[in-house]
Amino acid sequence: MNIPIINNLKRVVIIGAGFAGLQVAKKLRRDKFQVILIDKNNYHTFQPLLYQVATAGLEPDSIAHSIRNIIKKTKNFFFRLAYVHYINTEKQKIYTNIGDLSYDYLIIATGSVTNYFGNKNIEFFSLPMKSIPEALNLRSLILQDFESALLIKNDKERERLMTFVIVGGGPTGVELAGALAEMKKYILPHDYPDLNIQSMNIHLLQGTPRLLDGMSEKSAKQAYKNLKELGVIIWLNCLVKDYDGKIVFIEKNKKIESANVIWAAGVKGAIIKGFLKEDIKSNRILVNNYLKAIKYKNIFAIGDIAYMKSYPNGHPMTAQPAIQQGNYLAENFNSFQEEKKWIKPFIYKNLGSMATIGRNKAVCDFPFFKLKGFLAWIVWMFVHLVSLVGFRNRVIALTNWIIQYFHYNKSVRLIIRPFNRKNRKKKII
Amino acid sequence: MNIPIINNLKRVVIIGAGFAGLQVAKKLRRDKFQVILIDKNNYHTFQPLLYQVATAGLEPDSIAHSIRNIIKKTKNFFFRLAYVHYINTEKQKIYTNIGDLSYDYLIIATGSVTNYFGNKNIEFFSLPMKSIPEALNLRSLILQDFESALLIKNDKERERLMTFVIVGGGPTGVELAGALAEMKKYILPHDYPDLNIQSMNIHLLQGTPRLLDGMSEKSAKQAYKNLKELGVIIWLNCLVKDYDGKIVFIEKNKKIESANVIWAAGVKGAIIKGFLKEDIKSNRILVNNYLKAIKYKNIFAIGDIAYMKSYPNGHPMTAQPAIQQGNYLAENFNSFQEEKKWIKPFIYKNLGSMATIGRNKAVCDFPFFKLKGFLAWIVWMFVHLVSLVGFRNRVIALTNWIIQYFHYNKSVRLIIRPFNRKNRKKKII
Repeated sequence: MNIPIINNLKRVVIIGAGFAGLQVAKKLRRDKFQVILIDKNNYHTFQPLLYQVATAGLEPDSIAHSIRNIIKKTKNFFFRLAYVHYINTEKQKIYTNIGDLSYDYLIIATGSVTNYFGNKNIEFFSLPMKSIPEALNLRSLILQDFESALLIKNDKERERLMTFVIVGGGPTGVELAGALAEMKKYILPHDYPDLNIQSMNIHLLQGTPRLLDGMSEKSAKQAYKNLKELGVIIWLNCLVKDYDGKIVFIEKNKKIESANVIWAAGVKGAIIKGFLKEDIKSNRILVNNYLKAIKYKNIFAIGDIAYMKSYPNGHPMTAQPAIQQGNYLAENFNSFQEEKKWIKPFIYKNLGSMATIGRNKAVCDFPFFKLKGFLAWIVWMFVHLVSLVGFRNRVIALTNWIIQYFHYNKSVRLIIRPFNRKNRKKKII
Repeated sequence: MNIPIINNLKRVVIIGAGFAGLQVAKKLRRDKFQVILIDKNNYHTFQPLLYQVATAGLEPDSIAHSIRNIIKKTKNFFFRLAYVHYINTEKQKIYTNIGDLSYDYLIIATGSVTNYFGNKNIEFFSLPMKSIPEALNLRSLILQDFESALLIKNDKERERLMTFVIVGGGPTGVELAGALAEMKKYILPHDYPDLNIQSMNIHLLQGTPRLLDGMSEKSAKQAYKNLKELGVIIWLNCLVKDYDGKIVFIEKNKKIESANVIWAAGVKGAIIKGFLKEDIKSNRILVNNYLKAIKYKNIFAIGDIAYMKSYPNGHPMTAQPAIQQGNYLAENFNSFQEEKKWIKPFIYKNLGSMATIGRNKAVCDFPFFKLKGFLAWIVWMFVHLVSLVGFRNRVIALTNWIIQYFHYNKSVRLIIRPFNRKNRKKKII
């Protein structure tokens, strides 16, 4: 990989520049370590706002940030755009599409990928929303659907194109359903006056008895109410059995005709080859209370990919634990080199969780209080704005939101790269 | 195409939503005509700023605007996302990928495509910059080149990746060369500290004895001087003979080794099948002084595709004549229905031309005076800002420019869809 070896510095290799990997890379002291960050993209993705890219509310470039732009103090820091194929834990080497690399310490922060629970049909025919290209595909497809619907005379076929089924009632599914419902209400009737937009249907399918499983019952009920008011058809206790590109088959012989299934039903750890079965639980790497992979001396895992045994079911696979773990690990690494010991175990501080359900509406659960409605929505916006990486991205996102608020518009309704259903196999580009 | 026929209204079909087509579509009175606008994209592209997308200065979504968002007063207006294959002038019908459509009046505003002057190698191996996907491919490729250059130990091979050859010294070539030179100066040394950015070379090749042929000699000289100061290697009187993906072959056995040739050497009218040889000159449709295609009663051509016989060499293939012609034709159409005659022939008013050459530098030729330097640069920015379609796009572009100005940064250095040289054939997507 053409990276110099520095004799008196230990080399830390970080795989993944998501919330966790980026955090640890930023915080590690470069006077103590040679830090090498590897990612398959040259940008960090702010995943919580992907749904706004998919629904034409934000441009993709406002939620992505060049990694080289984020980490500019370049002494002893190296970024490489690469895809890691395999780790050899004995030789202490990783193997990538651009060559191999040895490490003294390895931090795995590969995050998670969409979980189809083994159903190949669903994987092939439905659309995921875990990356910017995927969100852009979704944006193209939604708009292409309506352009196509204009041309179709068969009612059933046209309605199938105008029916959107979102599987998964977590924050992603709820926020996406809300944003689509707002498109139906404010935008599509103006864009397509010769279509009957009332025949557009948005279904939200949730496997458990309530939405937003990770949040309070109160917030879940509020989200349910708000989505209902926006016209979203909500199915609870509802598991999808199969999908053939036209019909969603649900338990108890129910079905929904839809050309558009968006799969937000779950994620699983993005495991890299080279670990043993006993290193892994629920597709995540088992770590001790110090985020060290069990049985390895110099391998750590943080973020979605880490499964801490002592925390029931592992930490939530969201941004907060990832950022906290990245911070924690960097601090420990930094102080470790000062000959201090790894004293404190990692303790996750749940700062709260939130979801927005369209204009003026959101729910927030904080440790000591809950919010809903307009105030929650303002808090949601503020938290997401300050969390966005980079001043430019914050300004651009805020500008978009202000204009949207006053103009009842989502401006970036652009089909820049049309999505071809026939090329589904290539969809992850 | 599923568009109703209205008995007492004549149907005007406009092909192309560039500057010309969009203008006439906006201005035609919908109480007098049924207006149908057709484009292969669902957005209008502000082509003068494509080079900023290619050089990571602006996000693509800030120079594109949804056509349905621009034309909202929808009475008797229809937009269709379609590609026109063929026109049957006798049957008065157009044939597209989504069906056929009859017209009473046809306005052709298909614009222009990149002109490779018949050289298939150049067409295959070089990169054009006439559309947003093409500009994004270029952005990806530039960034991918530097990521790859990091890994290459062979000096010659690495320098080839870091050498950019821009063919064409018109405004596009000059502005692109300036923007690349600024990347070299302000951005790339920070992004790639382990590369010797001084070995990056930017060549600008012009076939005639001077840059900016359409502008004054004074401005051309100023642009030449500014580009030289930025380190651009300028070749005048220099015609490219061939390119094999690695070596640019120039007349007199000269050559430049480069993996990146950007072709801005010319455009040609985007002719649709169905016209006779005598209808066409220099790949453009011959029109009379009223922009009516000669020999046809009900076919008009405006913008790049129109060649007005009485104007020497036809009007410049730029935004200004396109907008003026669109305006003119709409006015004539509107007053024609008021039983007035087609009195005034079209007269092109050259309002001036301009080009920017990086930070604080531009040249402007106006009818009665010329500007250069900082003031010209401010004028350039102002004119481009107010010409951008849509309030949001103006605000986003201005925000980007302000941040860039103070941070010496181009923020959107993102490889969202990597460009694969091996897939060149598919490059126009």
